[in-house]
Amino acid sequence: MEKLYIVFMLLGLLLACKESSEQVVEKNKEILPSWNDSKSKAEIISFVEKVTKQASPDFVPVADRVATFDNDGTLWTEQPIYFQLAFAIDEAKAMVFKNPELKKDSIFNAIANNDMETVMKVGEAGLGEILMVTHTGMNTDQFSKSVENWINTAKHPKTGKLYKEMIFQPMLELINYLKKNDFTIYIVSGGGSDFMRPWAEEVYGISKDNIIGTTLKLEYVMDGGEPKLKILPAIGFNDDKEGKPMAIHQYIGRKPIAAFGNSDGDLQMLQWTDSNLYPSLQVYVRHTDSNREWKYDRDSHIGKLDKGLDEALSKGWTVIDMEHDWKVIYPEK
Amino acid sequence: MEKLYIVFMLLGLLLACKESSEQVVEKNKEILPSWNDSKSKAEIISFVEKVTKQASPDFVPVADRVATFDNDGTLWTEQPIYFQLAFAIDEAKAMVFKNPELKKDSIFNAIANNDMETVMKVGEAGLGEILMVTHTGMNTDQFSKSVENWINTAKHPKTGKLYKEMIFQPMLELINYLKKNDFTIYIVSGGGSDFMRPWAEEVYGISKDNIIGTTLKLEYVMDGGEPKLKILPAIGFNDDKEGKPMAIHQYIGRKPIAAFGNSDGDLQMLQWTDSNLYPSLQVYVRHTDSNREWKYDRDSHIGKLDKGLDEALSKGWTVIDMEHDWKVIYPEK
Repeated sequence: MEKLYIVFMLLGLLLACKESSEQVVEKNKEILPSWNDSKSKAEIISFVEKVTKQASPDFVPVADRVATFDNDGTLWTEQPIYFQLAFAIDEAKAMVFKNPELKKDSIFNAIANNDMETVMKVGEAGLGEILMVTHTGMNTDQFSKSVENWINTAKHPKTGKLYKEMIFQPMLELINYLKKNDFTIYIVSGGGSDFMRPWAEEVYGISKDNIIGTTLKLEYVMDGGEPKLKILPAIGFNDDKEGKPMAIHQYIGRKPIAAFGNSDGDLQMLQWTDSNLYPSLQVYVRHTDSNREWKYDRDSHIGKLDKGLDEALSKGWTVIDMEHDWKVIYPEK
Repeated sequence: MEKLYIVFMLLGLLLACKESSEQVVEKNKEILPSWNDSKSKAEIISFVEKVTKQASPDFVPVADRVATFDNDGTLWTEQPIYFQLAFAIDEAKAMVFKNPELKKDSIFNAIANNDMETVMKVGEAGLGEILMVTHTGMNTDQFSKSVENWINTAKHPKTGKLYKEMIFQPMLELINYLKKNDFTIYIVSGGGSDFMRPWAEEVYGISKDNIIGTTLKLEYVMDGGEPKLKILPAIGFNDDKEGKPMAIHQYIGRKPIAAFGNSDGDLQMLQWTDSNLYPSLQVYVRHTDSNREWKYDRDSHIGKLDKGLDEALSKGWTVIDMEHDWKVIYPEK
């Protein structure tokens, strides 16, 4: 008799503890409020819950809760051109304005005439030249000030928003949700770390030393008795594709348990994370929303998602469908 | 009458608030207990107090309280040879033992015969060869395991202690004191980050992502379907001298307000810190103790402190006299 009583009591407890699916939906509404009740949201929350539950066989100690995010196309928009390239073009325009002699160079001339068609035609080599000319020669303090000025004033040609307002609200919520669950968050981006750090710390709430990007070579120089770091026109470290796991190793020293990207350039970072002995989460943001953002994947010149999508589908990684999974794209002012 | 009363009251308050020098000595005994009541200790504590006191004109916000430490000779001993070189020699010995063919190489032969005189005679090129051969070719997981095995078993020829026990107790207390005052602590060392990270996190209480050192180039390879990072025989980044401010910029993204070194290789890091617009502290650990540790500076082949000492003396930087300023050198077991 007594044994039966205990069995019923335990059964009652079990039923009381087990959340109904309705309860789960209700609870998840408070987590990630800008997300629809989607598969991707459920997968993310389910992962976070299992790795943070002390009694879970999948529990991961706090020190190992490392999450890495790509930036362009994952945390903010990257269309119609990478925002760092928009910065470079604006800087180049200002350079031509100050020094009209530069118009002898066909790219500078095209830039001065707002002839973006010609600028784009010159391809990667030409764009590389614009990037180098606008990103090097000055010291790191001067470059940082240029970026600050630009990010606080320059507006996107299509939306009219400041570029820094074109970050993804659902991803901001995701960063905060992971932080609340004692994850350490890093950006691991192909963009320049010196381009991101002047604003990304405040905008995303990720401290500068956790913002990892492509670097240029530096030179230590004395300028009137003051040490400065002069930026040289040579890549120091290219933080893209295979470079991402390398940067994760060199900067972080731990393998992530969660990684978020949007393009083939993030594939190696997701593979690297997938090889963690702890349970891990791999997430692709898929640009499916032609109305509120841009729609592109396999054939895009920017943020191409082709091999990565195949691997995500075959391995069952999480794919966020921006159009259907997100209630809003950008933060409301 | 009333005014006079207020003046006396304020005077009384002022006297009550002002600590006597005896009280300061008494209080400082609890802070940094392994330190004698030295000038260096007083300078460090005075700096920390002024930058952390909210009302102080020298107050520094928490996010900017960055402190960087060199490792070899600053946090642990570096004599008679850098401990990382001792590791390399032990690894090379094991390699010859496994593969006696290697004895055809004169350095490997000398190592096999414990003929350190010959090993040292070959100079930097030879030592560089030993370092490369023992540090590259494997993947980062394998290298990490080798370091772990060595650091937990190998003992120093003079003291008989494990190498990881030859860290400086007073510096450990300093790290903890700074942490308590909301400083973020980084190691910025010429030693390899892959050599330090397997043990330094636990030994110093500094997380892996805050341990910055020299890196070797990596290659992303697939090994039976698992991604690995293979270590290549080429320097990726040399984190010494001018490299230190560069690494601080690339990894941390903020200028330190406090920097600690022991050799000319740390001079640029101290200059960089000295150029901070916030108040800053520059500290050299001077090896003055021939009994309990090693005594060396201007003429030493390891950890040479010559130009750095001149600059420290002329600029009034803090210089720690190990013999007189520290009660103990290594932690007691």
